[in-house]
Amino acid sequence: MALYNHILVALDLTEESTQILERATRLGSGSRISLMHVIEPLAYAYGGDIPMDLSEVQNQLQQQATDQLTKLGRSIGVAPEDQYVVIGQPTSEIHRMAEEKNVDLIVVGSHGRQGLALLLGSTANGVLHGTKCDVLAVRVDQKK
Amino acid sequence: MALYNHILVALDLTEESTQILERATRLGSGSRISLMHVIEPLAYAYGGDIPMDLSEVQNQLQQQATDQLTKLGRSIGVAPEDQYVVIGQPTSEIHRMAEEKNVDLIVVGSHGRQGLALLLGSTANGVLHGTKCDVLAVRVDQKK
Repeated sequence: MALYNHILVALDLTEESTQILERATRLGSGSRISLMHVIEPLAYAYGGDIPMDLSEVQNQLQQQATDQLTKLGRSIGVAPEDQYVVIGQPTSEIHRMAEEKNVDLIVVGSHGRQGLALLLGSTANGVLHGTKCDVLAVRVDQKK
Repeated sequence: MALYNHILVALDLTEESTQILERATRLGSGSRISLMHVIEPLAYAYGGDIPMDLSEVQNQLQQQATDQLTKLGRSIGVAPEDQYVVIGQPTSEIHRMAEEKNVDLIVVGSHGRQGLALLLGSTANGVLHGTKCDVLAVRVDQKK
């Protein structure tokens, strides 16, 4: 019997993503697994309209993310229709997707590294708040 | 193969504890499971020395918690030496215990109820920060 019916794995597509994926697949034997990556809109950082070249950068980011997610998804046999690259605020997009797809476990990465970690940490925290399902925060090894 | 070697389940001993325990045992097939309850010292609330009668109350709380934990532990076959009632600040005690006992997964409850939930929510959050292992936040059903 599967522990969870549908697991949503939110990946930041850093090199630690494979560790999170490995944990999720071990946990998700017999479960449906969906993968998700959220890109924060560049407009947020620039406070308004995106200049033409930024819009181009955003498209490239999205394409790059889709390629990476496809590769990761293929490695563990996740169907293409269960892979999502979304633009928005990570916490709310993860919540929205979890509800929409009737997910019963969200898997996110967590680590204590400075910088990017602050963002990741706050995503894990944010996901914990207000979610209607279980959340597994996978502690990823810090690269030296 | 067990998903985790040693799972620490932190329980607040409310009626939702059985839900958390149920999830932990399903996840922890083949794993060693330890149970823990943290009592916050009454002295914190009274800012100093505990009057004699409060000290008595604290002893009673501790005895009560030990009895409840023993009962829960027995129901899922956790050895008495793997059950801990500790006095202190929940987050730091859970971290300390997890490191001391070489735990690779901490299971905590999480829900959105007001009041007590705020405390529980912040415990789950606190546990997430600075931990060296995975954390599973089990979403417990809210009693109507």
